[in-house]
Amino acid sequence: MSVVEIPDGSPFGVENLPYGIFSVDDGRPRVGTRLGDTVIDLSVVLADPVFAAASLNPFMAQGPARWAQVRERLTQLVAGDLPDTALHPAADVRLHLPVEVADYVDFYASEHHASNLGRLFRPDAEPLMPNWKHLPVGYHGRAGTVVVSGTDIVRPCGQRKAPDEPAPSFGPSRRLDIEAELGFLVGVGSPLGDRIGVDEFARHVFGAVLVNDWSARDIQAWEYVPLGPHLGKSFATSISPWVVPLAALEAARVPLPGQDPQPLEYLRGGQDWGLDIEFVVEWNGEQVSRPPYREMYWSPAQMLAHMTVNGASARTGDLFASGTISGPDRHQRGAFIELTWGGKEPVVVKGEERTFLLDGDEVTLSATAPGPNGTRIGFGEVSGTIRPAKENRAQPPG
Amino acid sequence: MSVVEIPDGSPFGVENLPYGIFSVDDGRPRVGTRLGDTVIDLSVVLADPVFAAASLNPFMAQGPARWAQVRERLTQLVAGDLPDTALHPAADVRLHLPVEVADYVDFYASEHHASNLGRLFRPDAEPLMPNWKHLPVGYHGRAGTVVVSGTDIVRPCGQRKAPDEPAPSFGPSRRLDIEAELGFLVGVGSPLGDRIGVDEFARHVFGAVLVNDWSARDIQAWEYVPLGPHLGKSFATSISPWVVPLAALEAARVPLPGQDPQPLEYLRGGQDWGLDIEFVVEWNGEQVSRPPYREMYWSPAQMLAHMTVNGASARTGDLFASGTISGPDRHQRGAFIELTWGGKEPVVVKGEERTFLLDGDEVTLSATAPGPNGTRIGFGEVSGTIRPAKENRAQPPG
Repeated sequence: MSVVEIPDGSPFGVENLPYGIFSVDDGRPRVGTRLGDTVIDLSVVLADPVFAAASLNPFMAQGPARWAQVRERLTQLVAGDLPDTALHPAADVRLHLPVEVADYVDFYASEHHASNLGRLFRPDAEPLMPNWKHLPVGYHGRAGTVVVSGTDIVRPCGQRKAPDEPAPSFGPSRRLDIEAELGFLVGVGSPLGDRIGVDEFARHVFGAVLVNDWSARDIQAWEYVPLGPHLGKSFATSISPWVVPLAALEAARVPLPGQDPQPLEYLRGGQDWGLDIEFVVEWNGEQVSRPPYREMYWSPAQMLAHMTVNGASARTGDLFASGTISGPDRHQRGAFIELTWGGKEPVVVKGEERTFLLDGDEVTLSATAPGPNGTRIGFGEVSGTIRPAKENRAQPPG
Repeated sequence: MSVVEIPDGSPFGVENLPYGIFSVDDGRPRVGTRLGDTVIDLSVVLADPVFAAASLNPFMAQGPARWAQVRERLTQLVAGDLPDTALHPAADVRLHLPVEVADYVDFYASEHHASNLGRLFRPDAEPLMPNWKHLPVGYHGRAGTVVVSGTDIVRPCGQRKAPDEPAPSFGPSRRLDIEAELGFLVGVGSPLGDRIGVDEFARHVFGAVLVNDWSARDIQAWEYVPLGPHLGKSFATSISPWVVPLAALEAARVPLPGQDPQPLEYLRGGQDWGLDIEFVVEWNGEQVSRPPYREMYWSPAQMLAHMTVNGASARTGDLFASGTISGPDRHQRGAFIELTWGGKEPVVVKGEERTFLLDGDEVTLSATAPGPNGTRIGFGEVSGTIRPAKENRAQPPG
């Protein structure tokens, strides 16, 4: 039996206790939490088969009363001796995709981001569409290509057409970008024909992860009218391995910056689910941006209420993400297309002028939030390295 | 032991042999096929646990060699005596959603439909976007709200704003519509970073179903810029319970009507996957349209090649649909917004002038295709009845 030591200032203190799926040499994925630099095997310390599952979905489906009970029990357990068979150095475990993603919806909830993208994609029009301040605009992404941090990102090929080119050409994306986002995981869904009220957020949402919604801007710009982004986004979306429970984010809650006009009734309330989370974007190890989540216009409670107000069911494992987090200042922009203003204003990364991603580049997003008593809660990180495109493809054997 | 009798002209002859999931009084869903007016329990006549599963996914994942083998064996079996325990009158079984849908992508592959919608949604612009003849435009829909034929459709609520209204209002959709489509089910997927060639369609796709992509046009028109349709579509998508295997559609294959300009190389080939399938749209039992699938501009082989050309993985259970099937003539339009030209040219249904769907309305899509030796293959039908919106919602108990 041992007591887990927590380094001073660790973002994984006793106030955090995130959930993830890990394996060691035996290759058997199961549920763990992280405390300091240690991963605790919950299938050893808690007597419930949901913690032996290869995804968090069974535990997430148990609902908020059970989530609170487990969190309380864990808080007690980690204060005392734990069996050595349950403890693994964080550096020794492999972290897996924490959830089986059901549906994935990506929102567009930062006014600064939506305005910047509007100026870049539609320079001759109003940057914000007329609907933008009335509803949280969002669309469905590809659930099957949500991958865990550390998964290599193969540069996508596709159709690209610059405005001055007469016809599209096929090839690797020349404007490969990131989007720094926060993602929310639905634990308890809702049946078809019903809806989730804006004040019911915490009864349904289990926790949050970091999201990098990799984006091929040239593919996206050519394809996206009139049905929205498709192949410019669907090749990969990376998420962080540790799911921070909503309960750990209580001290991070702040009011939204303010909504004008007042939204329709089904979107009133939930304005107290702004979150004071500080993101850091690192490009090849150099910090290039610090997007502030507290600047987001729409709250995640409003996103979930909107997503289901038409009677669409929600399921355990649904992932919905905020859209790119961008603040008012240049160094707060969460996508490189904004940071470099469409590639026209390069940033300096390790002494080189850079615009979009090159093969071999690595991008890491991390984030922290206030915890109780002056502590900080960490989300860990979501990271990915760009691998060269596979332009030519051998026909597989018949 | 009995021989199954097949009524003359049945669309479920020995050339069809579709797969579905059924249950009887015991409530245990398993795999069956339909022959004439009889459902044959494949978990009884074939010795493979995949046929005792509650979805077709395990069988679909076995791949094309196995699909061919099972089809050949079934063809032999149904020519002889079958055990009575395997036989159920079609009228006595309950049909379930045949697949666990992984990702759902909806295309927009009819030139007539895309042109009509362009004229209706963007009257002051070119009806077809510049990208439309270069790539099969598509977007992700909500997989979790794909339902089986017979499921009631609750009229969705949402934000609607007519062009002459100063602000959006919340309420039940006033322009509830259908989209008659053909859907394709992926049996064998492809890994992340790889892609499926345009000539590899039949190695990956298991079969086809009828799709009714219910659409709330007022919600859609207000929300869809710039990220595409979301709540106007996500409340429900109905599919037919019987999956017609690709092998049953060989006699229905026709060349596409023609593509100009010639598409990029990754979309060349697959032009021999046009399909001569005749749809019938019935509104409260009255035939209002006969959309011809052979008029589609893009083939399903091209859709699948496009969907994965960026390295997006495909999974067993992925559903991709054609988009509304509309021919050049008015009586061939597969959506009521086209058939009634935005509601301005009502159609007569059972003696009443009608534009969009009213509560209590029932819509049924059916379709047939040429089979071998002058026979016809039937898809059966996909049907749904509109139920009143739930405008006010009691707060559930805490």
